[in-house]
Order: sequence, then structure tokens, then C-alpha cells
Amino acid sequence: MSESRPVALDAMGGDHAPHEIVAGAVHAVRERGLPVVLVGSPRVLYEALADHDATKEIPIVRAEEALEMDEGALASLRRPRSSIAIACHLVRRGDACAVVSAGSTAGIVTTGRLRLKGQQGVLRPAIAVDLPTLPAPAVLLDAGANAEVKPEMLVQFAHLGATYAELAHGIEDPKVGLLTIGSEAEKGDKLVRRAHELLQGSPGITFAGNVEGHDLLTGKVDVITTDGFTGNVALKTMEGAVRYAFAELRQAISESRLARLGAAMQRSRLRELHRRLDAEAHGGAVLLGLNGTVVIAHGASRAQGISAACRLAADLSAAGVVNAIGERMAATSRSHRLWWSSHGGDRLE
Amino acid sequence: MSESRPVALDAMGGDHAPHEIVAGAVHAVRERGLPVVLVGSPRVLYEALADHDATKEIPIVRAEEALEMDEGALASLRRPRSSIAIACHLVRRGDACAVVSAGSTAGIVTTGRLRLKGQQGVLRPAIAVDLPTLPAPAVLLDAGANAEVKPEMLVQFAHLGATYAELAHGIEDPKVGLLTIGSEAEKGDKLVRRAHELLQGSPGITFAGNVEGHDLLTGKVDVITTDGFTGNVALKTMEGAVRYAFAELRQAISESRLARLGAAMQRSRLRELHRRLDAEAHGGAVLLGLNGTVVIAHGASRAQGISAACRLAADLSAAGVVNAIGERMAATSRSHRLWWSSHGGDRLE
Repeated sequence: MSESRPVALDAMGGDHAPHEIVAGAVHAVRERGLPVVLVGSPRVLYEALADHDATKEIPIVRAEEALEMDEGALASLRRPRSSIAIACHLVRRGDACAVVSAGSTAGIVTTGRLRLKGQQGVLRPAIAVDLPTLPAPAVLLDAGANAEVKPEMLVQFAHLGATYAELAHGIEDPKVGLLTIGSEAEKGDKLVRRAHELLQGSPGITFAGNVEGHDLLTGKVDVITTDGFTGNVALKTMEGAVRYAFAELRQAISESRLARLGAAMQRSRLRELHRRLDAEAHGGAVLLGLNGTVVIAHGASRAQGISAACRLAADLSAAGVVNAIGERMAATSRSHRLWWSSHGGDRLE
Repeated sequence: MSESRPVALDAMGGDHAPHEIVAGAVHAVRERGLPVVLVGSPRVLYEALADHDATKEIPIVRAEEALEMDEGALASLRRPRSSIAIACHLVRRGDACAVVSAGSTAGIVTTGRLRLKGQQGVLRPAIAVDLPTLPAPAVLLDAGANAEVKPEMLVQFAHLGATYAELAHGIEDPKVGLLTIGSEAEKGDKLVRRAHELLQGSPGITFAGNVEGHDLLTGKVDVITTDGFTGNVALKTMEGAVRYAFAELRQAISESRLARLGAAMQRSRLRELHRRLDAEAHGGAVLLGLNGTVVIAHGASRAQGISAACRLAADLSAAGVVNAIGERMAATSRSHRLWWSSHGGDRLE
């Protein structure tokens, strides 16, 4: 809340860039009182801001290039002056508190690793998403930054996720679950069997054991650690299934006149519910483990989603998530090293 | 339909064994006209049948042992006289047309592989499940038989699933999708990138490219091939998400009196809908690639679910799914071998 540096908003990334991104910046500034700088093509952004009469409220930082949504991770290397790269640069220089982008996830992850670098002791940054459980969201990570991981990374994801759950959701001593295909320790593939061993008794982690796909939305654990391939498939499957259930329901409701009457009565509650399930409304995913706060908004985000992502980014920065992760990594690294080596873990770094 | 051999029903497997299993057998015999033999402890089963006045309608085959739900796959080796092993034996001897069990999936898979053996040319049997898409179900496999696979196995799962989609759902030339985390060919981990190469232009397969988690319920493809780890996580995540959406909905509906009225009006349609989404109602998963038809009913199955599983098993047996897979494997094996070796694929078996 005491943060006065602006959020660096990548104005060129996203399905509805730049217009919905600019509209989101205007919303964040006017409705939420958050300082924002737009990063992108000055001419285009100036015109878009003019549509909102906001050319004097929101500064623009020039970036002549942009990563296309369908460009692979390698494009990040070829475009040191892309809008996302410049946004990272602003954070690195201390001119912005956090980055928000609705651009391609692979592009954001690669550019973030390149420009902000991983925090000391962090093997790989991971994408954390909030699942709509009650009373607090459960944190799932990695949701797609790392398709291939080592068991030690799943332990680190647990640390990253636990720090985030503590800071963002106020959960003390978060319970960590390992996503796999059976609740017994010996279930799963080699990766998760080894990760299970490492997590068990791992210092600083409250390991609650294996969890399965149907546990993700029950609130059984506060943090779910998994590789980016499985996590991404699970997240998208969940979104698809909720969308499916609602579509089916909508059809069931509108099919008879009596039913339509019932639907009208329920409309207000259903609208509320839909909003809570909507991935966009709570701002986006967070890339944890870099020297800077990075929020990845949904590619399809419109103004409201972008504004919510700016709120999330500013809050995480104000809460000091990067420092908290740094301290946790430093505090556990010695005991981890000892513990891992005594359990035959590979030495990484 | 011309099948007159009974279904061999493992009466000792499942959360509600033996009573709900026996009740399911009685339902299958009386309501569906399907011949069934119960496999398990004669004393226990005789008593359970007596409760239904059915001791003369349904034969019992003795099995003195049973696999516990929480026993690992190795227990199958230690228990050659378990109810699931005896049920497989009846199929192998030609005394039953198919096996149905609601026991532990790992136990069924291991026992099935051991007692029925894999079909010639099949590297690994796979568990196929129907997803509730329209107009026809989409087939997802492997849903959990193989946590670790090779790329070539994903191609074979495509063949197994396509045969099943043709026979069970009447789909000509089924479209096959590969489950991964991006629609472009280069997305995913090493396994799926290699499988993508192999599937492309693979003889006998209509490959529709990569699919993601949110495509599973849209009916975009008819068959989804994936490893058993990812498939199991996706399936359980989907079940959990649909359950979650309904629980949220139910709560939204009952919270006010007006809403309750609306709910009453919709009750019949909602019930219908729930049934279609309910994994149990359509019988269960099918273990494909063995020398015999094996249906894995949901562990929590009650009588109706068991009866539906018996129907599915008898129908698949009558449709000749084992022969159809055998023919497809024989027909494609030569062209596959040539094609694989020219594309640098590993030679397996």
C-alpha cells in the first residue's frame, strides 16, 4: 500500500491489445488509484489514451517492438526492445514496482528469466495460479512455465507457493500437496515418487502428502506442487469443465418456460457465482522466483481483467513477495543442502 | 447381442462389495436380461443372493481371496486365486465373455496383464474412458494404466482408442488429438513432441493435432491420447470441477425461498443432466489391448453402476472389440514398422 512506483503494463501483449489494455490502465488509475505506466508504441498508445482523455494521467514508455502471441520463447532473445522486455527493464532499474502482461505466457517467462534473472537459489521460476477454493484460494504451481522438471524443483515450487500463500492469502504454515495419481506414496511416475521422498520431512514445508485431480477444488491443501505440463493440463481441464457445466446448466434452464422463470429468479446469485469462477476476475497468474514481481494476465483479458492484474501486481510488490522468497530460500538453503545430501538428492545449481 | 456367455463379475472388489455388487448382478440379470456369474467367497455371496431371493438365478464361482482396495499392483502376483484373477481365468477359458470389477484399478490392470496377457503387437494395455461430449462421447486414454510411457505407446493408444470409438460409438474414421499444453507442434515435453512427430502421417490414424485441457469436453476430437499420469490427473480434475460447479450451484439455488421455488421447477431437468455427467452411469472405464474384455467400474459403484458396467462389458464383447483391435494391430503393424523405422522411431519388441 505504501508502494508509489507504478506498475509497468505491457500494452502490446494480449488478444485485445492495445485498446483493452489501455482501457484497463485507465480503470486502474481512476478507479483503484494505482499508478501505471504503459509500455509500447507511443503513437498507438497516445491515440488510445486520447480516446479516454487520459493522455496526461498515464505516462508512456517507448518500446518499438512487441512479441506476437504465437511467437515461441526464442523470440524473446531476438527482441531485446520488446514491450515486455522494456517493462522488465523498468522493474530491474527500480522505476516500476511490477510487470503486468497479457502476452504469450512462453514469451513472458523467457523474457522474465532473461531480463530479471532468477532469484538466488531458485532453480526455475514457476507460474502460480489461485484456485477458487474457500475460505482461501489454493495455490497451484507450476501452471506451465516448465514442461520438464526435476524432483528438486517440485520441492522448490512448494517453497515458492507456500511463501505466496502466506503473503497473498494470509495462510500461516500452508499445507502442501503433491499432485499425482494416487494417494499412496508409491503411486505415480518416477518424478513424483522421488519428489514425495524429498518433500517428506523437508525443512520448512508442511507436507500433507499426495493429492489427486479431484482434490484441487476441495481446499484439502493450500499449495499444490506439480510440473508445468501436468499443472497446465489440470488448470485448463478445470476451466473447460466448469465452462461445460455452466453451458449445460444454461441449456437446461432455458429449455422450458417454467424453467426460464426459475432462471430469472436465480439470475443474481448465478451471476455472483460465475464471477467467482471466472479466471479473469482475480487478476491472473504470478510468475514466482524472479528478481521482480511479474503478473501474467489471461490472454483474453479485457479492461477489468487488466485492472485487476495491476491491483494484484501492486499488492504483491507492496507485500514484498520477492524479498520473502529470497529470505526463505536463504534460510532453507543450508538445511536443504544438508538434508538433501543426507537423502541422496542430486546437487543442483 | 448374440452373446450367451455370462459376464464374470468380481463380487469382492469395490467400496461397497459385496452387497452392492450382488445387487448390481441381480439388476443386470432381471432388468437387462444379461447372464452374470459372481466370483468370490461362496458363503458370503450365497447369503447376499438370498437377500434378493436370487440364489437360483445367479451362479457363483469360488474365489477364496480378494485384492484389497489399497493393495498395490504386486498383490496381484501374490494372489493367483483372487476374485479378479479367477474372473480373468473364466474369460481366458471361454466360460465368460468379459470381466467386470470395481476393485482397485492397479490390481485389475496388473491381474489382467498377468492372466489375460496383452494382445499381439500391443505394447501396453490402456484404460479408455468416455467423456460426456455430444453428439458422441470422446474417448480419453490412457486414464491411468501406465504412469510412464514411450512416444510409440501414445501412437498405439491412438489405435486402441480409434477402434473403440468406431465400435462403441459408431464413429467412422475418428479424429485423434494429442493432449498437451499448447496447440503448436513444438509445445509440450519431449514425450509429446516426439509423439506428435510419430502421429503425423501415421498410417491408419486421422491425426487432428494437439489438444489442450479445455478441449476435452468440446467434442473437437473423437479420441484423446495421453500418458496414464496426465490422463488420470485430467480425468479426476474434470470430475472434481463438475462436482464443484454443481455444489456451488446447489448452494446458490437453495439460499433463498424464491430460488428454492426455481429449483423445484428445474429439478427434473437437473436430475437428467446430473446423470449424464455422472461417471458411474455410463458403466465405467475399459481396459483395451488384452485378450479379453475388461470393464473397470468406479470404485464407489452401487448396484446401478455395476449393472451398467455389465451391460457395457457384454456389448463390447458382442461387438468383438478384442478381435477388431487384433485386426487393426496386424494390419498396421507392417506399415507401422516400415514407417517408424524410416522416421527413426525406436524398435520395440
